[in-house]
Parts: sequence; structure tokens; C-alpha cells
Amino acid sequence: MYPNSIKNLIEAFKYLPGIGQKTAERLAFSVIDFEDEEIEFFENSLLDIKNKIHTCSICNSLTENDICDICSDNHRDSNILCVVDDVKTIFTFENMNVFKGKYHVLKGLISPIDGINPEDIGISSLIERIRKEKFNEIVFAFRPSIEGETTALYIKKIIEDLNIKTTRLASGIPMGADMEYIDSLTLERALSDRKEIE
Amino acid sequence: MYPNSIKNLIEAFKYLPGIGQKTAERLAFSVIDFEDEEIEFFENSLLDIKNKIHTCSICNSLTENDICDICSDNHRDSNILCVVDDVKTIFTFENMNVFKGKYHVLKGLISPIDGINPEDIGISSLIERIRKEKFNEIVFAFRPSIEGETTALYIKKIIEDLNIKTTRLASGIPMGADMEYIDSLTLERALSDRKEIE
Repeated sequence: MYPNSIKNLIEAFKYLPGIGQKTAERLAFSVIDFEDEEIEFFENSLLDIKNKIHTCSICNSLTENDICDICSDNHRDSNILCVVDDVKTIFTFENMNVFKGKYHVLKGLISPIDGINPEDIGISSLIERIRKEKFNEIVFAFRPSIEGETTALYIKKIIEDLNIKTTRLASGIPMGADMEYIDSLTLERALSDRKEIE
Repeated sequence: MYPNSIKNLIEAFKYLPGIGQKTAERLAFSVIDFEDEEIEFFENSLLDIKNKIHTCSICNSLTENDICDICSDNHRDSNILCVVDDVKTIFTFENMNVFKGKYHVLKGLISPIDGINPEDIGISSLIERIRKEKFNEIVFAFRPSIEGETTALYIKKIIEDLNIKTTRLASGIPMGADMEYIDSLTLERALSDRKEIE
């Protein structure tokens, strides 16, 4: 029904998460009204993602260089390492400007039920790095979940001999939250992690 | 904060309607996980839209050829012309397989309040075509609106001398609609256009 080029672009948009047939059609038609330069920019951006972006050889974050900007920044605190399970977390943290140490990206979290074992998520290269770079503290910034706890505990156990402080992000009630809508797991964690007022 | 290639792709996604910063970031990161062939397909689809898609020289629909598939199809009823204000309407109609005549696409509707005059939407080439092709009937398939009525009346007036039947799509209550949620304009139209039961 559609000319081939339009049909193909609709299919291409459907590769994207959360984009179904109707939305893909709407997006494809909007592209027809783009300026040539806009389409070219879009096209080149895709090309660059394919050709320029790869993982940092130290921390596995995404970079256009061999080593990412954070790993090669000498002004950052190299005593503290933040381990994340998703590279997006790094950009979220950097955006909020709240952490000044180094990062390491795992390819997900250990989840035996999904068949994801320690060797699948790149734990050995993390351990190797920890042994080499002598951090004072490892912060696990995984999303709060059984898999996150399992992964953190697993790593903690392997590096026990190094006597490095290991921490996880505090779980609890988000700032500004309406108490009425707190789920029971969060409340349980907030209670067991309660802090003395000093 | 992001590597340049990612930043650019996020910007590119933001060109699309309804895509804000957050969604653009999510889409861009999903592209990083695409297979090379998928990115290439996406990229080529964009290129093809720029290089291959243009308007049909007869009806203004979108095509990769000089004349679109519908205009060049001799099996279609060339006595009836459906005038639309948006090329997407053609694809919707074709998809539903309910109309077998020819089409003509205007570039929008007359709307003096928005500064859109008859000469802006390509009415003269439509009139020229009507005079040349001798249709028996012109159906206006504009979205129901003041602008749609104005445009249809304007065209009707110009071709008055040709004595061609001009019609518009029926407005009224959609099939299966819940009467409770009908808006007053639709109800008014449904009442004034009421049909005798035969």
C-alpha cells in the first residue's frame, strides 16, 4: 500500500522499543516533511553510533575513544569505584553531578532463574580491575532487586581478602514521596535501614 | 556528558513529533544495542525517503515514481475523485479498501485565521485537473471542521459551471459509539443529517 521507502522506514521505526505500527507510521510521515539537512543529520547520527561508539576498555562505559572521558580524567577520585549494571546509570549520575569517583559497568545482574551467571556479566574483568587499582571503597549502584543483592554479595565475597569497604546505595522512601503510595517492600527496607537522628 | 555520537542521535530523535528528551535518550540507547544490519536498514530507509519519495505529478500523493500507483491504475473508477487535505488519508482509505476512485491531495485546508489561503494549498491545480479529467463526482474527505467546510464550499463554487456532483463524507455518530460520550457538535450534525428509514 505504501511506497517501498515509506514501508521500510515504518519497519525501521518499529525496531525501537515501545513503537508500534501506528506510531511508526506517524513518525515515518513526519520524516517526509523534514528538511534534507535534518534527515542527513539523523542518518549520520545512526552511522556514527555504528562506527564510532564502543565500550571503554577500562570500565565498559560507552565512548568514541579507546578510554572514556571519566576513566581518563585524573581529577576524579580514584579511591572509590561505583559499579552499575547498566551504562545509562553512569549518565544519570553524571547528569546529576553527585558522584566524583570512577565507574565500572557490568552487563546486567546475576540471575540464575534467567540463566545469567557471573561469567555472563563480566565480573572477572571487574575483579581484575579491583585487584589492580586498589580502591578504598566499592559502591554497588544496582537497581534495588534480588538480582542486585545477589550480584553485590557475590562480588563482595570474591574480594573479601582485599578488605575493601563495600557499600550499596541506601534504599528507602524517596524524597517528597506521598506516604500513602509507598509499597511494602520499600517501607520494610526503610524501616530496617532506619537511621538515628543525630 | 554523552559521547558526541549519542548526543547527536538523541537530538535527531527529538526532531520527531511527540519525542522529548527522556524518550529520545531511551530510543538512542536502544539503537546502541541494534545489530549493524538493523542500523544500516534504518539509515538507508532515511536516505531513501530523502532521495526517492516525492509527490505524484497528477494527484500530489507520495510515490517513488513520476506518477503514483493509483493514478496509473486503469482499473480504478476515473469518474469519481476524492479530495483529501492530508496524504495520510489516502493510505487510510486504501488500507480499508472502501474507495475505488481516484484521489487528489491538497496541502491542507483554507484557514484565513491561520493565513492559509486557497493559493497556498494547491487549489488551482486541482481545479485544472477537474476541468481536464471530467469527473462525475467530487467527494471531499476532509476532517469535519469549519476549515473543511470552507474549503469544500470554495471549490464547489469555482467549478459550479461544470455541473459536477459534489459530496462530502457523512458526519454523525460513529458506529458502535456510546451515546453517552457523543459531543454536541457531532450530535447536532447527526440530527440535521438524519436519514429516512426506507
